[in-house]
Amino acid sequence: MKKVTIKDIAREAGVSPSTVSRVINKSAPVRKELEEKVLEVIRKMGYTPNLVARSLRKGYTDTVGFIVPDITNPFFSLIIKGAEDFFKKKKISLVVCSSNHDVKEEEKLIEMLVSKKMDGLLLVGAGSSNRVLNSILNKVKVVFVDRVYEGYDAPYVVSDNYNGMKKLVWYLVKTGHRSFAFLNGEEGTYSATERLRGFVDALKEAGIKDYVVFFGQFTYESGFSLVKKLGKIPDAVVCGNDLMAYGAIDALEEMGYEVPKNVSVTGFDDLPFSKHYKPSLTTVRQPFHAMGYESAKILHWMISGKNKKNKKIVLETELIIRESTKGGSEYETSGNS
Amino acid sequence: MKKVTIKDIAREAGVSPSTVSRVINKSAPVRKELEEKVLEVIRKMGYTPNLVARSLRKGYTDTVGFIVPDITNPFFSLIIKGAEDFFKKKKISLVVCSSNHDVKEEEKLIEMLVSKKMDGLLLVGAGSSNRVLNSILNKVKVVFVDRVYEGYDAPYVVSDNYNGMKKLVWYLVKTGHRSFAFLNGEEGTYSATERLRGFVDALKEAGIKDYVVFFGQFTYESGFSLVKKLGKIPDAVVCGNDLMAYGAIDALEEMGYEVPKNVSVTGFDDLPFSKHYKPSLTTVRQPFHAMGYESAKILHWMISGKNKKNKKIVLETELIIRESTKGGSEYETSGNS
Repeated sequence: MKKVTIKDIAREAGVSPSTVSRVINKSAPVRKELEEKVLEVIRKMGYTPNLVARSLRKGYTDTVGFIVPDITNPFFSLIIKGAEDFFKKKKISLVVCSSNHDVKEEEKLIEMLVSKKMDGLLLVGAGSSNRVLNSILNKVKVVFVDRVYEGYDAPYVVSDNYNGMKKLVWYLVKTGHRSFAFLNGEEGTYSATERLRGFVDALKEAGIKDYVVFFGQFTYESGFSLVKKLGKIPDAVVCGNDLMAYGAIDALEEMGYEVPKNVSVTGFDDLPFSKHYKPSLTTVRQPFHAMGYESAKILHWMISGKNKKNKKIVLETELIIRESTKGGSEYETSGNS
Repeated sequence: MKKVTIKDIAREAGVSPSTVSRVINKSAPVRKELEEKVLEVIRKMGYTPNLVARSLRKGYTDTVGFIVPDITNPFFSLIIKGAEDFFKKKKISLVVCSSNHDVKEEEKLIEMLVSKKMDGLLLVGAGSSNRVLNSILNKVKVVFVDRVYEGYDAPYVVSDNYNGMKKLVWYLVKTGHRSFAFLNGEEGTYSATERLRGFVDALKEAGIKDYVVFFGQFTYESGFSLVKKLGKIPDAVVCGNDLMAYGAIDALEEMGYEVPKNVSVTGFDDLPFSKHYKPSLTTVRQPFHAMGYESAKILHWMISGKNKKNKKIVLETELIIRESTKGGSEYETSGNS
């Protein structure tokens, strides 16, 4: 593979190298026909301007990195889409990497992206240590997404897991559910912790003590197998996310229960598919797209030097009532009265 | 943000800069206690070795790019996962970019990834022109994924769309279906073209002329709205992919038809969700993971200089029979006779 240089272009176009450079960098005006000639030769010879060199002059590379734990989880890919949609308008390229929930891999990716001169990073952390976080914050501009790191004064964008879960449980209580099982995701993660807090607080306020909590993973399979471990089937099975709810519904039906006739099941996320599930899922909608879009916007401010001093954004979540829970219509009525 | 240099590390560790360099680059042995001291200081000071500089010496950067048209489509994210799983074993980092089905954006991303010194590229093309393809192939090692570009001697990995669709239609004919509608994805794309070819050839061999073909997009919404345009409902609605089949099933049910009692519906892909759809989907399984994994393997060979002369791989597809089509059990019987 031969490397085409500015000199090659200049020779072929019959102009000086500095003219070529002016065309590429738009650093000074060039006569229209010369410019066209140079651009034509550039196209013909397949020349790639050295963006790294250009970036040294401009001070930035117009490239931003986004690290997520799992690229195949629609929850993350929808957040990525939100960030993409913002950066596209600013003509900034987004490169995405997956840590596979692996802290070592995450560290390696951060190091790689920093060395590739990203202007900034969006990070849905896999759980990196304080040492790593300190080190990142010293080297590159970062916005944390879907995670809050206690004790760090870095900007973040999360959704309101706590109040989302509270709204959902209040609704279940109001529609007559009196016993509960919470099939939660990975213990210790930010989302699982906040959702559990909302669940417990809502039941406490309602004076309901008949509940159990299990931890598993945020997957279909985990929802399916946790249901099988329940001693008795409660009025409502509250799941850590939508994927777990799909699994719980299928397990309950396999065990001979009808959803929602015999037992209500709820999710969390409102993945695009949940309105098509049968029964369609009562759940809490997370503003995926906004989470990505707002994170990108904050990072862009930081990169542009308009540092609005540590923006911390908590986006609202929305209760979505569908067919997987009993009593939707009664609630609508009492809700309006 | 202060930048930590090798000299800072050396001063802090009380060793010479060349010792630090030897530890970082493993270019020569260093006494164990000195090495530990240096590594400790590196950790403490948050030093990132300059990977670009290192790569100049090694000749490669251990980073590979993957451009797909849409990161939110599970079809692509599952292929990405396959590539990730291969590269992880080789300690190569994968960065993923989405072109949003936009040829201009694709060109820009290719240029960016080349300038960031990727060792190679995996590309699910959005439809770039010959000029762009020529230019890429001159600059960087590329494996095309899920696309065949006529007239290019570059390696590719695709799945057998043509024979997959043929197997599916043969099965439908064998189980008594005599009239067909094919709701296909984007006209002119490689997948849509190959699947149509398989569909038409299978019906020709069976002597069946009662069929219609519609083009739309490979989305749920498109499947839903194309069904509504059908003048009469045939024995079987064959869809371009699983997402379209989900939409077609929901539209048919809304129109008062039962699937598969009144009409059979099929997909293509076998997304993880299709076995959970109600009814579960008869479809053609694409080897997503293998598509990503094999592409990665070929690219790795090329990067390592073991160029096994233009590998072109067509992976087998598999007919998956489930509940959305009539007559599965009869087929099993006649299939064994």
